[in-house]
Amino acid sequence: MRAVWLENQSLKFRKDVPEPEPGAGEARVKVCQAGICGTDLELVKGYYPFSGIPGHEFVGEIVLAPDQPDRVGQRVVGEINVNCGACRNCLAAQPTHCENRTVLGIKNRHGAFAEYLCLPLKNLKAVPDTVSDDAAVFVEPLAAALEIQEQIKIRSTDRVLVLGAGRLGQLIAQTLALLDCDLTVVARHKNQQALLTGRQIGWIDESAVRQRIFDIVIEASGSPQGCALAQKAVRPRGTIVLKSTTMERGDSGINFSSLVVDEITLMGSRCGPFAPALHLLKKQRVDPTVLIAARYELREALTAFEHASAPGALKILLSTT
Amino acid sequence: MRAVWLENQSLKFRKDVPEPEPGAGEARVKVCQAGICGTDLELVKGYYPFSGIPGHEFVGEIVLAPDQPDRVGQRVVGEINVNCGACRNCLAAQPTHCENRTVLGIKNRHGAFAEYLCLPLKNLKAVPDTVSDDAAVFVEPLAAALEIQEQIKIRSTDRVLVLGAGRLGQLIAQTLALLDCDLTVVARHKNQQALLTGRQIGWIDESAVRQRIFDIVIEASGSPQGCALAQKAVRPRGTIVLKSTTMERGDSGINFSSLVVDEITLMGSRCGPFAPALHLLKKQRVDPTVLIAARYELREALTAFEHASAPGALKILLSTT
Repeated sequence: MRAVWLENQSLKFRKDVPEPEPGAGEARVKVCQAGICGTDLELVKGYYPFSGIPGHEFVGEIVLAPDQPDRVGQRVVGEINVNCGACRNCLAAQPTHCENRTVLGIKNRHGAFAEYLCLPLKNLKAVPDTVSDDAAVFVEPLAAALEIQEQIKIRSTDRVLVLGAGRLGQLIAQTLALLDCDLTVVARHKNQQALLTGRQIGWIDESAVRQRIFDIVIEASGSPQGCALAQKAVRPRGTIVLKSTTMERGDSGINFSSLVVDEITLMGSRCGPFAPALHLLKKQRVDPTVLIAARYELREALTAFEHASAPGALKILLSTT
Repeated sequence: MRAVWLENQSLKFRKDVPEPEPGAGEARVKVCQAGICGTDLELVKGYYPFSGIPGHEFVGEIVLAPDQPDRVGQRVVGEINVNCGACRNCLAAQPTHCENRTVLGIKNRHGAFAEYLCLPLKNLKAVPDTVSDDAAVFVEPLAAALEIQEQIKIRSTDRVLVLGAGRLGQLIAQTLALLDCDLTVVARHKNQQALLTGRQIGWIDESAVRQRIFDIVIEASGSPQGCALAQKAVRPRGTIVLKSTTMERGDSGINFSSLVVDEITLMGSRCGPFAPALHLLKKQRVDPTVLIAARYELREALTAFEHASAPGALKILLSTT
């Protein structure tokens, strides 16, 4: 089949990749379209050691499901963490933290930038008919945005600052805007600012960030300066949520002594729940499709990746048709 | 009066320091004895810019209290943060985070390594008759140990690891041992290990720390390697509490990418509540006096500081008599 292939930080388009065979409990999914995420760009930079087919944001159709043949033809999105169900984290109801997990297109499992992928049937969630493919392809990053609300209580009286208005920052902003908190987004690029304005979400320039007043600061810029800015903005006893995995060890810019003196909480946040993400799309409470910046064919993947790497670039979709 | 004086990272014993005059709402306290804390050693290293009389752990007697003369003669300990009562943090019931605070012997206020100190009457807490001076001098660090329990819920089923069994680590261990959680302390020195054994608290060597299994890890070692070890030991979605202010910017050893992937919470923790600390001493639920390693006169302060800096040294007291 046709697929994007990553090896030794080199990305290729290939036509000779074998179609994946579903393992026990798994289904084969024909990918309709897939989104390029910051993590994919990191993989190409060699940030995680991964060889194979990248891609983990997708919408597709089940074409082979030996264990549940009645699901063939179902339009689905997929929870990317494949867990063992038996380790202590799985048994503690934290399947996304399975110690033996594979992760679609990220860790020991071929991903979505291909004609077909395989995932366990339990990972595949049916997409409601009223949710378009363009919306459904955002379920995975939308779930990641919603993970913040799974982890911390955000009150209507909270001052919340989102650092970064890129792919993930926009989704975080849209989900937080539903909470009626005092929300401000730091947006650097004109197109990002326009999207926020279009949804009546307040944005400011980085230079206008007020110091030590925000109850919650969400670092979604992926920039090395993001953590330091978050620490400046957060109030004593406030919370900083880290959504970016791009920072290298040691270069965070966090002042640990001040972290202790100001009793700041720093919280890592990764994958989130699919059900509320699908729910928001079904109810049209959020509209991620405004983020779509361009569409490419699978064979144009290298150009697509280049486009996605440009400053301010929003969502780039790869289509398999 | 006689006092220890710190200036330009140089510590001196002086006999010519003017006795402090209580401001509005303040009292003058005759210091009975005072403890040397890690923060005092940091001040000498120039970690915070402070000039004047250091010292913030003390027990003493009110000798002058213009606003409440009936309190003269009362034996007291003192909350070290002097707040304005009017800034947003004070109004948000977070007086220890007052934006205009002075801090006894740490920030813009002379401290306890002297014959006399001044603090607001509202900061001075009466010591119950049954609590000895040797116990009372530990109220401030004991309160800091208890701050952890103010910030996070510790369950009886939680595996808790305390890194460091020095002055603060021992107090943290004693307070956590009351909670019936699964407690382990990393203790490096024989005298520290013996104290823990004496209270039936389990300790291990650093090399025996198991990876990714602790629900809560408390970094109280003050060592630059402490954070990295804490991150190795904590389970996914676990919490690391930072009690040491000794780490310089950037050298924490924390891997921020893993912090996000494992959704770790990192929480700074500083000063704590005096009332529960006094309560525990009154009920004899903890015994900090076992930590007393040596006593010195005020004029021997330089020797005392040297002793306190020795590896494994526990509490060194300075007496003003």
